[in-house]
Amino acid sequence: MTDAATSARQALRAALSPRSIAVIGASDNEHKIGGRPIAYLGRHGYAGALYPINPSRPEVQGLRTYADLSALPEVPEVAIVAVPGDGAIVAADQCAQAGVKLVVMMSSGFGEVDAEGKRREREMAARARALGMRVVGPNSQGLANFGTGAVLSFSTMFTEVAPQDGPVGIISQSGAMSVIPYGLLRQRGIGVRHSHATGNDCDVTVCELATVVVEDPALRVLLLYLEGVPDPWHLAEAAAIARDRGLPIVALKSGRSAAGQEAAQSHTGALASEDRVVDAFLREHGIWRVQDMRELVDAAELYLKGWKPRGRRLVAISNSGAVCVLTADAASAAGMPLEPLSAGTQAELRTILPGFATTTNPVDITAALLTNSRLFSDILPPIARDPAADAFFVGIAVAGAGYDVPTFAADTARFAQATGKPIVVAAPQPSVAAAFKTHGLSVYATEAEAVGALGQYLSHAELIAAAQARRPALPSPPRAVRPAVMLDEAQSLAWLAGRGVPVARHMLCADEAQARRAFETLGAARVVVKGCTGDASHKSELGLVRLGLQSAEAVAAAYADVVAAASAAGVRLGGVLVAEMVRGERELMIGARLDPVFGPVVLVGDGGKYVEAMPDAEVLLPPFDAAQVERALRRLRIAPLLDGVRGDPPLDVAAFCDAAVAVGALMLDDAAGVTQLDVNPVIVRERGQGCAAVDAVIFHSR
Amino acid sequence: MTDAATSARQALRAALSPRSIAVIGASDNEHKIGGRPIAYLGRHGYAGALYPINPSRPEVQGLRTYADLSALPEVPEVAIVAVPGDGAIVAADQCAQAGVKLVVMMSSGFGEVDAEGKRREREMAARARALGMRVVGPNSQGLANFGTGAVLSFSTMFTEVAPQDGPVGIISQSGAMSVIPYGLLRQRGIGVRHSHATGNDCDVTVCELATVVVEDPALRVLLLYLEGVPDPWHLAEAAAIARDRGLPIVALKSGRSAAGQEAAQSHTGALASEDRVVDAFLREHGIWRVQDMRELVDAAELYLKGWKPRGRRLVAISNSGAVCVLTADAASAAGMPLEPLSAGTQAELRTILPGFATTTNPVDITAALLTNSRLFSDILPPIARDPAADAFFVGIAVAGAGYDVPTFAADTARFAQATGKPIVVAAPQPSVAAAFKTHGLSVYATEAEAVGALGQYLSHAELIAAAQARRPALPSPPRAVRPAVMLDEAQSLAWLAGRGVPVARHMLCADEAQARRAFETLGAARVVVKGCTGDASHKSELGLVRLGLQSAEAVAAAYADVVAAASAAGVRLGGVLVAEMVRGERELMIGARLDPVFGPVVLVGDGGKYVEAMPDAEVLLPPFDAAQVERALRRLRIAPLLDGVRGDPPLDVAAFCDAAVAVGALMLDDAAGVTQLDVNPVIVRERGQGCAAVDAVIFHSR
Repeated sequence: MTDAATSARQALRAALSPRSIAVIGASDNEHKIGGRPIAYLGRHGYAGALYPINPSRPEVQGLRTYADLSALPEVPEVAIVAVPGDGAIVAADQCAQAGVKLVVMMSSGFGEVDAEGKRREREMAARARALGMRVVGPNSQGLANFGTGAVLSFSTMFTEVAPQDGPVGIISQSGAMSVIPYGLLRQRGIGVRHSHATGNDCDVTVCELATVVVEDPALRVLLLYLEGVPDPWHLAEAAAIARDRGLPIVALKSGRSAAGQEAAQSHTGALASEDRVVDAFLREHGIWRVQDMRELVDAAELYLKGWKPRGRRLVAISNSGAVCVLTADAASAAGMPLEPLSAGTQAELRTILPGFATTTNPVDITAALLTNSRLFSDILPPIARDPAADAFFVGIAVAGAGYDVPTFAADTARFAQATGKPIVVAAPQPSVAAAFKTHGLSVYATEAEAVGALGQYLSHAELIAAAQARRPALPSPPRAVRPAVMLDEAQSLAWLAGRGVPVARHMLCADEAQARRAFETLGAARVVVKGCTGDASHKSELGLVRLGLQSAEAVAAAYADVVAAASAAGVRLGGVLVAEMVRGERELMIGARLDPVFGPVVLVGDGGKYVEAMPDAEVLLPPFDAAQVERALRRLRIAPLLDGVRGDPPLDVAAFCDAAVAVGALMLDDAAGVTQLDVNPVIVRERGQGCAAVDAVIFHSR
Repeated sequence: MTDAATSARQALRAALSPRSIAVIGASDNEHKIGGRPIAYLGRHGYAGALYPINPSRPEVQGLRTYADLSALPEVPEVAIVAVPGDGAIVAADQCAQAGVKLVVMMSSGFGEVDAEGKRREREMAARARALGMRVVGPNSQGLANFGTGAVLSFSTMFTEVAPQDGPVGIISQSGAMSVIPYGLLRQRGIGVRHSHATGNDCDVTVCELATVVVEDPALRVLLLYLEGVPDPWHLAEAAAIARDRGLPIVALKSGRSAAGQEAAQSHTGALASEDRVVDAFLREHGIWRVQDMRELVDAAELYLKGWKPRGRRLVAISNSGAVCVLTADAASAAGMPLEPLSAGTQAELRTILPGFATTTNPVDITAALLTNSRLFSDILPPIARDPAADAFFVGIAVAGAGYDVPTFAADTARFAQATGKPIVVAAPQPSVAAAFKTHGLSVYATEAEAVGALGQYLSHAELIAAAQARRPALPSPPRAVRPAVMLDEAQSLAWLAGRGVPVARHMLCADEAQARRAFETLGAARVVVKGCTGDASHKSELGLVRLGLQSAEAVAAAYADVVAAASAAGVRLGGVLVAEMVRGERELMIGARLDPVFGPVVLVGDGGKYVEAMPDAEVLLPPFDAAQVERALRRLRIAPLLDGVRGDPPLDVAAFCDAAVAVGALMLDDAAGVTQLDVNPVIVRERGQGCAAVDAVIFHSR
């Protein structure tokens, strides 16, 4: 890290625990933007120096005020800017000149309004950076760290729902999304330490702030709300630090849909990214992506338990057969197998439970629990000893008068403690849920919610372990995408061949005689004749392709046809290709492009004519190795074909994976300047026989 | 309806509102099975005669007891059987002999335990039916109708959560699932009238009970929990009555997964049905299928509003831009477009809202609402007048001190009243949610839950309207599936051709000379030679197929090859088929089988070699028309190909649909005796050029 980068990082750390804070625009009214932070800092035990700046009052909220920055006894480490309009810019500039490390600009009316506002905040940030100061905001609801009492925020939520320091962190551009998860978690009794809203992100972004929040040793899980990911390199760095210390990151990235992207554009000016690229990026770095607010908060508490999950096999216990059935469905949907308990355990359970109970897995205690409350507690020890479980589900469908709920809850807690394995409880009755929550168990209203949260937790643990084993490269800020030109097929194939991608044998011909000779030279049973052009990518539709030619005469005639068709279509030809017709088992494809934010992106998938109409492709972010390509192929709809079905031989998956790896390397090579690439089809032969690109289009910007 | 059926139906009606009830095994302890119903009947205003039967006590719970049935002053209309073991069977038999119309058998230890128990309950039900008595149970938690006070149930839940009569009905085999939705709905403040648990369904099933519950004029929505659908004809009848009177039915059918089906088998002995057949059946009859308990209850209250939805276009309003983005994503996922508000409305909104607010759709009021609480109320009237909305979403992300929440809520209620259009609210803060609920609005914690519930409600309304327009036939109890034999290809093609399905031109040949002549007679450029056998269905793998033959000599040689291959494989040939190679645009397939419960089931989908490896098919339940087949095709992955892509011509969809309709009619024809049928591929030509079945296998049982 450079000195400048180190110092920039230090300034961010200061934002989470400043030695001193000035509030520019300090208000006596604690419900005003310039008043709330002062009230919160006092209320939540901030121990540093606090300097309200207000030239028109001697004191606010019982604190002495100062007329301006220069009147302070020291240069404050951090300043809150809560004055409106142009005054905010002036204040920020003064802070930078005075040597303030970081300002939190709560003032609004800049980048969120129009392009002029965006320009003004950018210029302000640039001036600040030149003087070594960082800017959070503008239009920021503020930063809140309940661990240090540094609550530099004007959020209404901290008045509505009493804060409690705890192991959860939340970072969001949006003010609302920094506190809605806070509120929902507090309803579940979970403490939240960090709740940061960065606003317009003219300098410090959500992702960059995350790089220092993840350093907090008290954090057990970090939740992010993102509308865009403008700086994936910061997020990758935060993820790497978090993985190293076992801190999971869960992200709600909105703007999945076209309508959502449009709304995000008018909300935070977020640049739309292709959703599956975001998916691939987050997966690559071990960040779990959730679909909605409920998923963001429902599983959060499971990360706080300190479990070390070993697998996904679930053992379910309920007093309702129907809950057992619904749990089995939910477990299947979450990819959690229900393996039968061992014969020994089942025999033991049969000595405890009545004859009509089920002792395999799920274990159905049945309504007999009403007449004998001991049944529940008695079955737990043998189940705890059974090796079939990696995790547990307990569903108390109905209980109340006649049921010894406090004992069920206490014994479940003891069972959880004894096994040390992940466990979730479903209890639709609030009174029953409360009894289990008292013992620190994670309780959901329905089995689907309980199993869904558990499934997320277990899958995320696997994702983090895989990412950590791989230690993904940190992406660089992408190079600017320059204007590109399209290479013709012969040039494109030559590039690929030069990079180690096998291509169909072919010859570029300038006249009929050369075409005839090419047929003889190639010595293939059947050849194809194609007009070679950088003017058009869909050659078949223009009549520039002639397939299945079996003689020199046919090739010569096809040559003439193609030249005529090109002339008719107004397409310039850079020659005519004569290529062997490659025989193989399946047409796959490799595509690649430069994403303006995420950099090189490679697609592998089913190939042929219908790749747009019926897409079946997976995203890979280079660098990746052959094993990663194969895992991507195994996620495709056509995955069953890879090993051969209905008498087909298995495909040469290894050869295709090598070709995809070569394309990934090409895309990472800045000097090559490839901006886009489509190799379709890649004909894949039987295992051991290789593959060959038979058509390709490359755009490059050199 | 026959007299017997009418009387059977009358007995069911009596169960919901009996004139008189005997409780056999009456207990003085209201927490015992024989005590709870007596307590509940007294507590919930049951107005008929109640006769506790207990030979060993003079009275229970303050009521005079009787020694046995014969001691009663009248024959009770309904009897509850709450005595254990063999006594329960004896009691039921006595009831039948005495002329009781229906018993509710709460006693357990029968079909849910083992096959012997199953046999005993079946025989008991048969004796009862012979004497004109119906049986609910055994192992039934009981029936509860809070409209009539007929609470013949021992559920603990009605003690835990105070009942309140209301417009919701619930029917379930499982006791737990009859009351868990009850509890969750009561938590939302919704009244539940019916909560029935039918137990082992030895006679009266959930579906048959539904045929009378849907007659209750006070019901506005009926919820079902099903582990199996043993009598779809009853469910279809209930659905028809419900549609006629505008009563929506929502079903949670569990056992979606293999693990779930296994658990259901040990819970209620439910016969596993192919899940997509259940899907198709429920859709056909206008019943909405939900995935889990949460979906079952979350949308229920929207059915109670009396809205008449006109479409799916959503207008969303929030004070948080992030909520707008998340709502747009959720609306896209639910298939609800966000159309821009009209220019006039937007102009009006711009006069009210600050410049940085968004006025298109979603409407983002922004945090400016904190400084001016009027903004919310002021924008509602212009939005109410805008024609872009079929439904509304209001999201109050954060509110509290400084916000006039009571006014927001009251004005939203007025707005809802004025527009009469469906509306949902998301408010994560309990205090804000409570304010909106006070006005009868439907409030959810998150935007995804609110929009999800609304989407379900709107989709269900469309499903019901489509089913009602179609008035689907009521299925008959299926005929027994008899042993079937496989027809060879020539026989199968002949059957299809006779039913109006176009087939490839072909000739069945018994020697090489006939095969040569067939080539000349067919006059096709290319033919195929296939061994014709009822012994094997995958002919290609056995070498029984030779493709692309272009001369009589080649055909004769192929004939010899096929005969040799059959001999080598030990396959008997019923001749050798010479058939034209049909040229066309796409291979589709038609499959059909007799489901043991649902009767004839037809599949249409993509065809060819990979139908098992990469299935892409939709289920149809005959009878169906060509329009229904086309709608099914449009749900396929290959749907884009139907109209032609990348220069392909459009397919002759109409010809394929006619062929599928012919197969549907064949499957409905009992006399034909077809039990299974696979036509793959059906080669579909360019529009106007028809289609042709080129391979077929039929199993029939005549």
